[in-house]
Amino acid sequence: METGWPESESSRRFGVLFAGLGAISTTLIAGVEAIKRGLAQPVGSVALLGTLDVDPEGDPRHVRIRDYLDLPDLDDLVFGAWDIVDTDGYAVARQARVLEPDLLDSLTHELAAVRPWPGVFDPRFNRRGPVTFAKTGRDFLDLAEQVQQDILRFHEAHGLERSVVMWCGSTEAYLEPAEAHQTLAGFEAAMRDSDHAVVAPSMIYAYAALSLGLPFVNATPSRTVDIPALVELAQLHGAPTAGKDLKTGQTLLKTIVAPGLRDRMLGLEGWFSTNILGNGDGATLNDPDAFRTKQESKLSVLSSILRPDLYPDLYGHLHHQVKINYYPPRGDNKESWDTIDLFGWLGYRMSIKIDFLCRDSILAAPLMLDLALFMDLAKRAGLAGPQDWLGFYFKSPMTSTGQPPEHELSVQAAVLRRELRALVPVPMAAPVPPRVA
Amino acid sequence: METGWPESESSRRFGVLFAGLGAISTTLIAGVEAIKRGLAQPVGSVALLGTLDVDPEGDPRHVRIRDYLDLPDLDDLVFGAWDIVDTDGYAVARQARVLEPDLLDSLTHELAAVRPWPGVFDPRFNRRGPVTFAKTGRDFLDLAEQVQQDILRFHEAHGLERSVVMWCGSTEAYLEPAEAHQTLAGFEAAMRDSDHAVVAPSMIYAYAALSLGLPFVNATPSRTVDIPALVELAQLHGAPTAGKDLKTGQTLLKTIVAPGLRDRMLGLEGWFSTNILGNGDGATLNDPDAFRTKQESKLSVLSSILRPDLYPDLYGHLHHQVKINYYPPRGDNKESWDTIDLFGWLGYRMSIKIDFLCRDSILAAPLMLDLALFMDLAKRAGLAGPQDWLGFYFKSPMTSTGQPPEHELSVQAAVLRRELRALVPVPMAAPVPPRVA
Amino acid sequence: METGWPESESSRRFGVLFAGLGAISTTLIAGVEAIKRGLAQPVGSVALLGTLDVDPEGDPRHVRIRDYLDLPDLDDLVFGAWDIVDTDGYAVARQARVLEPDLLDSLTHELAAVRPWPGVFDPRFNRRGPVTFAKTGRDFLDLAEQVQQDILRFHEAHGLERSVVMWCGSTEAYLEPAEAHQTLAGFEAAMRDSDHAVVAPSMIYAYAALSLGLPFVNATPSRTVDIPALVELAQLHGAPTAGKDLKTGQTLLKTIVAPGLRDRMLGLEGWFSTNILGNGDGATLNDPDAFRTKQESKLSVLSSILRPDLYPDLYGHLHHQVKINYYPPRGDNKESWDTIDLFGWLGYRMSIKIDFLCRDSILAAPLMLDLALFMDLAKRAGLAGPQDWLGFYFKSPMTSTGQPPEHELSVQAAVLRRELRALVPVPMAAPVPPRVA
Amino acid sequence: METGWPESESSRRFGVLFAGLGAISTTLIAGVEAIKRGLAQPVGSVALLGTLDVDPEGDPRHVRIRDYLDLPDLDDLVFGAWDIVDTDGYAVARQARVLEPDLLDSLTHELAAVRPWPGVFDPRFNRRGPVTFAKTGRDFLDLAEQVQQDILRFHEAHGLERSVVMWCGSTEAYLEPAEAHQTLAGFEAAMRDSDHAVVAPSMIYAYAALSLGLPFVNATPSRTVDIPALVELAQLHGAPTAGKDLKTGQTLLKTIVAPGLRDRMLGLEGWFSTNILGNGDGATLNDPDAFRTKQESKLSVLSSILRPDLYPDLYGHLHHQVKINYYPPRGDNKESWDTIDLFGWLGYRMSIKIDFLCRDSILAAPLMLDLALFMDLAKRAGLAGPQDWLGFYFKSPMTSTGQPPEHELSVQAAVLRRELRALVPVPMAAPVPPRVA
Repeated sequence: METGWPESESSRRFGVLFAGLGAISTTLIAGVEAIKRGLAQPVGSVALLGTLDVDPEGDPRHVRIRDYLDLPDLDDLVFGAWDIVDTDGYAVARQARVLEPDLLDSLTHELAAVRPWPGVFDPRFNRRGPVTFAKTGRDFLDLAEQVQQDILRFHEAHGLERSVVMWCGSTEAYLEPAEAHQTLAGFEAAMRDSDHAVVAPSMIYAYAALSLGLPFVNATPSRTVDIPALVELAQLHGAPTAGKDLKTGQTLLKTIVAPGLRDRMLGLEGWFSTNILGNGDGATLNDPDAFRTKQESKLSVLSSILRPDLYPDLYGHLHHQVKINYYPPRGDNKESWDTIDLFGWLGYRMSIKIDFLCRDSILAAPLMLDLALFMDLAKRAGLAGPQDWLGFYFKSPMTSTGQPPEHELSVQAAVLRRELRALVPVPMAAPVPPRVA
Repeated sequence: METGWPESESSRRFGVLFAGLGAISTTLIAGVEAIKRGLAQPVGSVALLGTLDVDPEGDPRHVRIRDYLDLPDLDDLVFGAWDIVDTDGYAVARQARVLEPDLLDSLTHELAAVRPWPGVFDPRFNRRGPVTFAKTGRDFLDLAEQVQQDILRFHEAHGLERSVVMWCGSTEAYLEPAEAHQTLAGFEAAMRDSDHAVVAPSMIYAYAALSLGLPFVNATPSRTVDIPALVELAQLHGAPTAGKDLKTGQTLLKTIVAPGLRDRMLGLEGWFSTNILGNGDGATLNDPDAFRTKQESKLSVLSSILRPDLYPDLYGHLHHQVKINYYPPRGDNKESWDTIDLFGWLGYRMSIKIDFLCRDSILAAPLMLDLALFMDLAKRAGLAGPQDWLGFYFKSPMTSTGQPPEHELSVQAAVLRRELRALVPVPMAAPVPPRVA
Repeated sequence: METGWPESESSRRFGVLFAGLGAISTTLIAGVEAIKRGLAQPVGSVALLGTLDVDPEGDPRHVRIRDYLDLPDLDDLVFGAWDIVDTDGYAVARQARVLEPDLLDSLTHELAAVRPWPGVFDPRFNRRGPVTFAKTGRDFLDLAEQVQQDILRFHEAHGLERSVVMWCGSTEAYLEPAEAHQTLAGFEAAMRDSDHAVVAPSMIYAYAALSLGLPFVNATPSRTVDIPALVELAQLHGAPTAGKDLKTGQTLLKTIVAPGLRDRMLGLEGWFSTNILGNGDGATLNDPDAFRTKQESKLSVLSSILRPDLYPDLYGHLHHQVKINYYPPRGDNKESWDTIDLFGWLGYRMSIKIDFLCRDSILAAPLMLDLALFMDLAKRAGLAGPQDWLGFYFKSPMTSTGQPPEHELSVQAAVLRRELRALVPVPMAAPVPPRVA
Repeated sequence: METGWPESESSRRFGVLFAGLGAISTTLIAGVEAIKRGLAQPVGSVALLGTLDVDPEGDPRHVRIRDYLDLPDLDDLVFGAWDIVDTDGYAVARQARVLEPDLLDSLTHELAAVRPWPGVFDPRFNRRGPVTFAKTGRDFLDLAEQVQQDILRFHEAHGLERSVVMWCGSTEAYLEPAEAHQTLAGFEAAMRDSDHAVVAPSMIYAYAALSLGLPFVNATPSRTVDIPALVELAQLHGAPTAGKDLKTGQTLLKTIVAPGLRDRMLGLEGWFSTNILGNGDGATLNDPDAFRTKQESKLSVLSSILRPDLYPDLYGHLHHQVKINYYPPRGDNKESWDTIDLFGWLGYRMSIKIDFLCRDSILAAPLMLDLALFMDLAKRAGLAGPQDWLGFYFKSPMTSTGQPPEHELSVQAAVLRRELRALVPVPMAAPVPPRVA
């Protein structure tokens, strides 16, 4: 067989495994089931609704991305999960209060079918009270092996050959960069020593997945797979990686708006951003240690876009502040408020205020779906290590080059489209040797 | 001498002639003088502050646009104007109440030096009361010749060889497209007949300028130079044209924000835009006839960006409304308010509200400066007819191809940079044969 | 029997008859049924949740208004309606899309039980297309008699002695004041002549109700009962009246906020108010003729509160604008946006912006409930004619004195409480002679 | 002489002494001088612009408060100040950047004439760096005596008999309530012991002023005069007191809006308030210790107005948060943003967002002017101790009864007017025996 799609339908199917069965993953699962029944459109999914102009030099000719790349269908996705609470997808979704009870009730069967395996837990990184539904073992390597066993049994049970593993647990407490993060050897030693100063739970999932050559996505601001040791592991096993921190509400808007102001050479004195949210993420981020992890992820985007080095008179004195407030009345319905202090011709002041009433999991779910489909595509295409072209989806995109990432949304979208255009359809069946990114 | 700049300093100098001495033109003049004295930076001017990455394939290398293209200095600009009120730039600027009295007082000399020539007036297009400071003549052709005489005398008085003529008068009442707009011959017949159903005052300025081969800019939503007859004239005389309607407040933000929502495949149910402004423009637009001209300019941008033809489920049912309210307390300090009704995954609703406290003339002045410098550059480079690459500056960009214009700001900015990169420095002195755009 | 409540339970019951079965009335009915079942609290109802300090001179002693006045229970309300569409309360409520389908489905029986009698329709006042479910008759007097027959049959069917009749149809087209509005004799002549220049449909309901001595409420901005002729009729038959235009969204906030700014002697340059709404009311108000009726109701409140006559330096130059925009995406969920231009010490400018995401019928329903209970109380207390003390509920309160009404919410609330405190419990059974207000 | 004004003009004059020469005090002084020259109106001053209906039972008859009470003129105010920086009013005002440089320059003479006496400083309460312009002495009693000497010399120099002393220094670090605050004897012992755990600098000014029988105002959230010991002292010497924390921006609006929502029995789930400000107050409040003082002052107003005890279903679960962010771009131009989560009929949710672009010192200055005039009036009327009727001006009004204060602005305004109506004009010359409040 040459390039092109394999005959056996089974090979189109793949696993989507969530480390953390919470609001985002259940919103994704519920949505996929609803779409499969024809109740909804996959709004927000570039993979399923987006188009490519496949002849950018000639007359525009737009083709659906899903058709151009012959992506798997939603029927081809098989969901699994780990969590540190012994519950099921239906109960989680009800508790998350993202989706209407009616809708969830109509999907009870599909949601309840997702029952998590025991998760990896470490109180050093997650202040949640006593946890009973967690793996125990000799050391961290042992925990990783247990994770791998979960995956392999899942593959066998569902007749799968591939999965994408996605970390979407709570934001972990801040982890200082350590020497042992630099090399795989050092990191594995720390795994063996169960060293909490080096290894966070999300890294154990990453280690497990990458060692099996499976794509790994980090949806959160935690460091997770963004350390040289795990990049080395990914390259070794031909596994693509992507992260960090899904770009949803305020930062999404910031990376849309700021480039336009800079394109017009309008000056900025200040940009004040505040958020109110009442979901689990909000509660976690009330912990200053977890907020530090998040803060780092949120502050850097502006200077990257505005380039105060090139335009010191315009952006050299910008005050940028980002606040996150835990405010229970809102639940998952986040509100962000930005007030932007501009100056223009002759220094005259203007201002923009943006109020975004958004829904965290509603914005995140289609990003996760795209990442599952595109990471599976990357794997089939033989790409390994950080997938720079998926920076579109993240607040702090990992890069394979060590260069600072691109944050401007329109540029990220162009990079994504360019890479998709370049990816010829790739066989789904046979494992391919890694192409170093 | 081949390519490269000419020796004679005089040839760097050129005229900037405003048809309409009002808030925008005096804000521009005052700013230029303040910048020349070192009191301010040219904030908002891409020509003066912007950079180009001159090696886009290799490592980034940013060069100032003004240096890369060896643009004339602010000292090289010589200002002139027409108006239908016999006043001077200082008085106009005081009355416009855009800039602080202190600043204006310190520039009294320079501003007062700009005394307008009598303008072209037609009550059919401008409801303003009786006007005494206007040209009279045999027919419209005669008026155009008087405008040309003003220009030529100005050139002689200041030792100039070139000017850019910019229409920035009040928005004219709506003008129905007519047969006579289609050909230069038909249009000239209407000029000879002084036909108010065909020829608006702004067109008389355009006719005069283009016939002399001078670049012509239409800063307003009026049709002006955007008719086949005048494009034909521009091509004939090697004159570049650009318009219509400077993209400043709300529409600027719309063309920044909408592409990002579409890139993310987020659906839109509604986009409600309202404006309150209290300057002359606001008063003019209270006239439903003038508003019709403006409305047309404002409504089309969204469908061009969102492509409901490609994404009917996302944008096929969008309600887009634009309101403009004359509200005197604000003066030139416009406020726009947008409320945007989004839907995402599973159709869940979200909303964005944007409040923009902007300043009309402060945003417009640097655009006019850029247009003066870039249109002069276009002329020297031998470009003629509509300058598509300057669409960045306009709400309703004229195109040379008859295709609908690009509205997305980031794309417009990329087109602008690409064209600038392509323009090798061009001699300033000798007239060059037109290169058809 | 002296003062005090009658024994027979039947006499606590009374009819609540809506002329116009639409979003407001069905939201009220559904809510009442839900509250009766213990599913909800009567949020927004002063009559049911409010308290009185019954010893204002001594230590505070708060008593529930419903207890202090021994108000009827929700079980005592019996609903009826007229409409010009032959439908039922359940269908209307579903179509209005104010309440969740689930809730409505659980109340199908109670809602469907409300089937309207044919209404009074006149295309002069309501641009809605051809209407088939309307009364026809000899003249307007005949139509009024038919309305009375509906009421009396309803009383008989339900064993009732009393009803409150509430006009809550569409805003009618503007009606010029006429000579015939001045006296009952003149008005009755116009009724006999079916004079469309004098009598709008809402007046026919009012005439019918008042002639039976029943309380009549005008929930809309239409003139309806606010003419001397009908006040005369109300006095004659001992019927209390109240209106016009329920004070819900933007005007409610305006009459809360403006008094505070005036109390602080802060100046006002401008107050710009815009509304977007997509319900039937919005569609009706898109008709300039209906909007004129509404506009009148909305503009006067500020000058009444701010008193530019007393404070010309502060409020003598206020620009007040009110806009209403029909914008379908919102349905019943109205959004109002106010931007207020203040000035303070030394004339320095400040601004307040208020965005109110409200729900028209949700705000209106409890006001209707209060009005039903309080108008019934007024009737039992022998009050007749305009009930000034209910100005709290209206944008354009009717007054019995001919004086301009009070608009300040806190003053209206104090007046309401004072009157309630003064009303000793009144027998429910026997009709009492009218006490002229 | 009986009641009525004294003949000698000198007795109308009195001192206004600021402990803290900063943005507020210089804005007040500059404004007073500008008004005296006819350049401005005293916008925001109830004392000077407000009216009283002097016949509330009969037909309305509005009389200017200043006329009714024969208040002193602005010419009668003589300004003095203490500060811990040796500068003058002109320099302070320039640095505060509240008022336009032009205006300040035209008032250089009057502003520069106010040169402070050395202030009282204690690093325990104010984190500002090393201070050299401060009083030194044996103990705190000695410092208070030095303050009294300053006052008496000032009286002598200007021929004055009376002054009002106003504390308007930086917010002091949080001070724990102490046993020694309970009695004058205990407090004086702590003064003698220079006990920093009991006595803050603002209390030393208060002690000095009250011992002389002079009215004392606390414009800040610090405890200052709001302790039993100093109330005892005030009563002893017949000195009126008022405080704490001028009610200007967000809290002002909150006490205007919340009562209206409660009057309508609308429920509240949450009220999130955030502030951005860049003046000295903002910098001070960045210190968590100072913020604690402020926070206490800001949080209590809502529950006092909403009465969750009476309306547990409506307000029993309210989440109320107040944030203050130091954000330099704004300077004195504070922005507050409130987002209010309401619920109405059947629990349906609505929201109000309020954005207030205000100016701290512009709002505060006229309050200080009113307080100077009204506290002088109180003194002449023989009132002593906490002046409950001035609660209108404060976020945390002191009360004489120990009862919680009234926060509702409209009620406070009514109380203020009632007391003013009751105060017959009082002779200015002779000291009067204290009337215990």
